[in-house]
Amino acid sequence: MDSQPSAFTAQVAKGAPGPGVRFGGFAEYYFIGGNNDPTQIPKDMLARAAETVIKRDGHMIAIYNMGVGPQGYPPLRAFVADKMKRHRGITVDGENILITTGSNQGIDLVVAAMINPGDVVVMEEHCYASSISRFKKSGAVVIPVKLDDDGIVMDDLARILAEQKAAGTPVKMIYTIPTIQNPTGSILPMDRRVRMVELARQFDTLIFEDECYADLIWAGGAPAALYSMAPERTVHIGSFSKTLAPALRLGYATGDWEILGRMTALKNDGGTGALDQMIASEYFTTYFDQHVESLTKVLGDKLDCMIEAVEAEFGSHMTLFKPKGGIFLWMKLPDEVDVRTLIGPAGKEGIVFNPGPEWSLLGDGAKSHLRLCFALNSKENIREGVAKFARVCFEQTGIPPQSRNVSNAAG
Amino acid sequence: MDSQPSAFTAQVAKGAPGPGVRFGGFAEYYFIGGNNDPTQIPKDMLARAAETVIKRDGHMIAIYNMGVGPQGYPPLRAFVADKMKRHRGITVDGENILITTGSNQGIDLVVAAMINPGDVVVMEEHCYASSISRFKKSGAVVIPVKLDDDGIVMDDLARILAEQKAAGTPVKMIYTIPTIQNPTGSILPMDRRVRMVELARQFDTLIFEDECYADLIWAGGAPAALYSMAPERTVHIGSFSKTLAPALRLGYATGDWEILGRMTALKNDGGTGALDQMIASEYFTTYFDQHVESLTKVLGDKLDCMIEAVEAEFGSHMTLFKPKGGIFLWMKLPDEVDVRTLIGPAGKEGIVFNPGPEWSLLGDGAKSHLRLCFALNSKENIREGVAKFARVCFEQTGIPPQSRNVSNAAG
Repeated sequence: MDSQPSAFTAQVAKGAPGPGVRFGGFAEYYFIGGNNDPTQIPKDMLARAAETVIKRDGHMIAIYNMGVGPQGYPPLRAFVADKMKRHRGITVDGENILITTGSNQGIDLVVAAMINPGDVVVMEEHCYASSISRFKKSGAVVIPVKLDDDGIVMDDLARILAEQKAAGTPVKMIYTIPTIQNPTGSILPMDRRVRMVELARQFDTLIFEDECYADLIWAGGAPAALYSMAPERTVHIGSFSKTLAPALRLGYATGDWEILGRMTALKNDGGTGALDQMIASEYFTTYFDQHVESLTKVLGDKLDCMIEAVEAEFGSHMTLFKPKGGIFLWMKLPDEVDVRTLIGPAGKEGIVFNPGPEWSLLGDGAKSHLRLCFALNSKENIREGVAKFARVCFEQTGIPPQSRNVSNAAG
Repeated sequence: MDSQPSAFTAQVAKGAPGPGVRFGGFAEYYFIGGNNDPTQIPKDMLARAAETVIKRDGHMIAIYNMGVGPQGYPPLRAFVADKMKRHRGITVDGENILITTGSNQGIDLVVAAMINPGDVVVMEEHCYASSISRFKKSGAVVIPVKLDDDGIVMDDLARILAEQKAAGTPVKMIYTIPTIQNPTGSILPMDRRVRMVELARQFDTLIFEDECYADLIWAGGAPAALYSMAPERTVHIGSFSKTLAPALRLGYATGDWEILGRMTALKNDGGTGALDQMIASEYFTTYFDQHVESLTKVLGDKLDCMIEAVEAEFGSHMTLFKPKGGIFLWMKLPDEVDVRTLIGPAGKEGIVFNPGPEWSLLGDGAKSHLRLCFALNSKENIREGVAKFARVCFEQTGIPPQSRNVSNAAG
């Protein structure tokens, strides 16, 4: 009976994807994805936190949403509020936090609550791929705003806001990652934040502040969150994927009840996983600062290793955007290199990377850019992978002509 | 600055819900929702399982999907395969299991993979509210099939399949809950299963088998799953919400790769929560049968208590559908009672219940039916709540004229 042909094949929904192939493991030099360092998961302390919190509150899981309503486990919300107060200048209590099933759900909920097809949304010209696809899928008209080493160029934002208003299609929302911008790794300085808030108020534009990476900063911290400066028009989201672990599906959102209440009403997943919430809460309530300090040091070391490798292999044949935190490096090869032509040959060598056009609104305009993630990889893997990638790049494009002061052509 | 009016209010998306009110706690007599008994959560054993599994596999959470791909934690998939083999007659291995973020996600994924607007879907005339709403939202044309005490009436199914084929709008899919039907609690006998599979093959119709409650059966087990009899046209889903805890978001699906692969490709939530998966897996791999046996005994006792209360309060003025397992009781009051008129008055007394039309495709045709859940409630709460509900019903409708042999009019 098992040998009957599938009755599903002929009847799949229009537009449904193919069944694809089963997962076959990761590439050897895996420079994509917001993964973390497996050696930095505090297994023993998480195990202890789990034991404590399950013995104390385990009965709560018998009820949908632990019986406390759709906003999430109260101790976790209290921790998020405290963390945002201490690190991001945000004064909010747990009542105004919504725990989300990953920060991508936060993006989905904001889009569902606020965006109609045709609405105009400004996004950073290079931007998180999942946000780009989510806004485009909603039917929003997405306009790229220029970036420099300090994030959004405010004169360009002012120009877009004015032009769109004059055209009768005002900008409804600015989606921004001001603190560790993805992919450039910049931090928006305070004067630009002040200007952005002034512009948003002048043009009655909403701000969607995505702070997925804001807890992972090498030094000196960051200016206060935009939400703290314009709570009446800002919705703010964050994540535990980067500070603890992405396989936990835990993010959070805050905003006034007009937006947060609608996001809560739209969250129809039956609640965010209870044990993920409880254990992260129990651990982070005591150890967050200590954990993040230690993790950031490890990640900063890996970034240094990657920068050293990229500079040694590509020399002057690339431009680096040195990130101020996070887990990725954005770089640009010479204009004559289209990194999309490297995907196949690199894949054959076990190397995967994010080609610029996937992480950008500029399409061909980002064809020489790429993003390399480094948190998952060991330093040895980073060095080997970058060297192999430079070799592939040379074979395909003649660039870089030499690596580590040795001619590639001679190799 | 906090006192500025919200800029969100005037700009919400068309069709977005209002922000609603914040969660204010449960009603005193809370007879809705697939909740479980908090006293039956094995806190100490779950705590131990958590400690063991996090110490062993905790490093895996540093990577999206624990680094094992989108189908879920392999030991959990292996456990599901083993459980389905031992209890449901299904021969499948973990490679053909997809762990879902709750079984509602399983429904969403099947609908997304298979249903186009206008597709004809047969559902049981009284049916799980979330499934009804999900199929209707997809644009499917939903046709109710008759139920009796043993589930779907096969002659009625045969009639629908033939009529629809003749009309040029063949039935694409039968969605069914054959084992502990929701809300009637029936189990489809083997001869009907054989007939359903024959009909599905004759009319080239797909079967969507939802076994959310199939592990909670009072006695004697159930015939093998439909999936085991027609794997080429059946997609099968289940849940851990009922056997362990609904605040974990854990369900599973199986089917041939033509359907399961598409569901996997459509599952864009970044993975199901890792700690929920790991801890449930570690506990259930050893203790599932023991846990379910003990839980079922407790639930059966509560059902007996609820039946005793309903019979004492309503006497001959109701019809019971005695469930063969699960956590809910479906009953019918006399035709002159429209239970929708009781929602408000019962709510004032702290009583909430599922009115029939919400759990049925028949609309007004189910106006005298209601569903009462009992797993969350203590026996005392069940007795008090049912007595108060009977009192409310009498005050609004004159039915039941007497409760526990005492005239209600005299009360």
